[in-house]
Amino acid sequence: MIRSALIVGAGLIGGSCGLALRAAGTEVWVRDSLPGIEQLACELGVGAPWTGQQPDIVVIAAPPDVVPSLVVEHLVLCPSATVVDVASVKGALLPHIERCAQERDIDLDRYVGCHPMAGREYSGVVASQGDLFRGRPFVVSATRSSSAQAVAAARDLCSALGASLFEVDPYEHDDAVAMVSHVPQLVSSMLASQLRSASDTALQLAGQGVRDTTRIAGSDPRLWVEILAANAGAIAPVLREFLNEVQDTLGALEVLDAGTGKGVPRADIARAIQRGRDGVAGLPGKHGRGVDRFAVATVLVPDEPGQLVRLLADVSEAGINLEDLRLEHSLGQSVGLAHLSVALKDNDALSEVLAARGWARAGEQ
Amino acid sequence: MIRSALIVGAGLIGGSCGLALRAAGTEVWVRDSLPGIEQLACELGVGAPWTGQQPDIVVIAAPPDVVPSLVVEHLVLCPSATVVDVASVKGALLPHIERCAQERDIDLDRYVGCHPMAGREYSGVVASQGDLFRGRPFVVSATRSSSAQAVAAARDLCSALGASLFEVDPYEHDDAVAMVSHVPQLVSSMLASQLRSASDTALQLAGQGVRDTTRIAGSDPRLWVEILAANAGAIAPVLREFLNEVQDTLGALEVLDAGTGKGVPRADIARAIQRGRDGVAGLPGKHGRGVDRFAVATVLVPDEPGQLVRLLADVSEAGINLEDLRLEHSLGQSVGLAHLSVALKDNDALSEVLAARGWARAGEQ
Repeated sequence: MIRSALIVGAGLIGGSCGLALRAAGTEVWVRDSLPGIEQLACELGVGAPWTGQQPDIVVIAAPPDVVPSLVVEHLVLCPSATVVDVASVKGALLPHIERCAQERDIDLDRYVGCHPMAGREYSGVVASQGDLFRGRPFVVSATRSSSAQAVAAARDLCSALGASLFEVDPYEHDDAVAMVSHVPQLVSSMLASQLRSASDTALQLAGQGVRDTTRIAGSDPRLWVEILAANAGAIAPVLREFLNEVQDTLGALEVLDAGTGKGVPRADIARAIQRGRDGVAGLPGKHGRGVDRFAVATVLVPDEPGQLVRLLADVSEAGINLEDLRLEHSLGQSVGLAHLSVALKDNDALSEVLAARGWARAGEQ
Repeated sequence: MIRSALIVGAGLIGGSCGLALRAAGTEVWVRDSLPGIEQLACELGVGAPWTGQQPDIVVIAAPPDVVPSLVVEHLVLCPSATVVDVASVKGALLPHIERCAQERDIDLDRYVGCHPMAGREYSGVVASQGDLFRGRPFVVSATRSSSAQAVAAARDLCSALGASLFEVDPYEHDDAVAMVSHVPQLVSSMLASQLRSASDTALQLAGQGVRDTTRIAGSDPRLWVEILAANAGAIAPVLREFLNEVQDTLGALEVLDAGTGKGVPRADIARAIQRGRDGVAGLPGKHGRGVDRFAVATVLVPDEPGQLVRLLADVSEAGINLEDLRLEHSLGQSVGLAHLSVALKDNDALSEVLAARGWARAGEQ
């Protein structure tokens, strides 16, 4: 249980931390380099102004470039507190934090890096939500210097926020988020960028595939520039590898288009698709199982209130647990497609209940 | 109403067309260059063997490279029928079809290209489903030679399959599908390919973003090679433009990583993200409206049978129509996140009913 916390930096993440901690019964103080923002945060209920009280934990929720000096400053100001930062890069900040600590001749045993993997498309303290971190991953990246007590405090913070704990080495963290978050974000943005020159016809024919691949491209550039710049060292090698694959595939397509019969362009393209299939197979499914263990039924759902509920109630009453549900209705039609995923063992029962209750099935794609 | 049809090529698409047409009351015959496959199709109920009967419509459902000769052959064999092909490229095939027609000295007024935008991860006639095309786009690409009667027959085919009609110029079709289908498929595959070198930690931290961007990478290479090869000419310029953007962004990241302060790398990255935002904003939302008109509420749903139904029933009973529903549960947790999208006007009512029925909300991301 965290009795008291000092939030340093009253933005979306700091504000949301403050709201969550106060809801959990923690006394919260808040500091911001801009007095107006600090006052706004206090008025929004994030916490009370800090006047030198000693907290159990200090949460540095500031942009990556000022995190190192703020961490060390608060290790000095709060000599018994655990100090955590919540920046979205961890290993890349460590050398800077260590240099600042050396300059002030202070030990880093009370410091632990954290990364709550949550965000919104809005930024600023007014967008804060006490439930922002609920059900989201929260990475605790202890360094070799971190004391057991400091790590325990970071775990308590995760628990108070209602998040899911992942304990990961700081450098491994940066490589991991480059791979599964930062590169997908960049690729999605650059793919969506091509749609700027799409014809109206193309946009009309856009199906679920292009929607899914470009969904995260709606993100705020201001937030992402900070994250991507701070983790450039881990992102660049993955993006370089991706670039090489794009170059090879483009080469194969250009050979095919020219019709010169040079090389084996069809085999090159088949290999590119196969490599993607192999890669996506590594992603854990629901409950960490492989996605191949599910059966999918696609059902036509009239676009009227209550129809989807009726479908799910029919499935539920048959004692079948849905593993996943995906809706599709991109055609401006009066009907949508619901993709119901169930365990393979439930597939026959699902087919029976759909037929018995008169649900029209569409082709499974 | 189509009284009779000849399906040429008994694969997934031809087989599914046959099943759908028979269900709609059409007499169906089927031909395949492989006698064993033709027999299998007949045994599966796709149609009866063709012994020279004259159909209303001939559906050429063969790989793109044999479509031109088969179209012309059947214009000759069936002198009163409309002949359509259902290959997934249209403009790229036209010159070949015109050359074949000239050689046989036959007019193309009875020919219309079609593209039912549906597919499965399985191929072959045994995977056929009469409902494969229901609720899916069906492109009719008339040429300058196509007669009004032939176009009407193609529209009737779309209607018999239960699909949604889009009438598009053949060359515009190829550019459109390159943009919104083929390039996203390739990019998704090449992004997923990078996951082959992801650490276990990275895969564990994988969230909805990387899942969405790589979902279509699970596709079958055999099917996609044919499609991509046939449309290489329309895909290559879009992929080239994408490659240029990746190269520029990688350059900016490498400058940032080197810390040389050369150029304005942060501004370059911000622009890349902003371009993606602009691109994705062009995709039509449900009912063709912009996606910005919706409010999203994220709700924690315990992973137990019936919980999702209870949530949706609560929303439905309050008279609120769901515009979209997206489920997330990638953390191996006992709880999932449901993202409920409603019209802005329903947002307050949704918040009220969620609170009144005791649903815990998570941060809207």
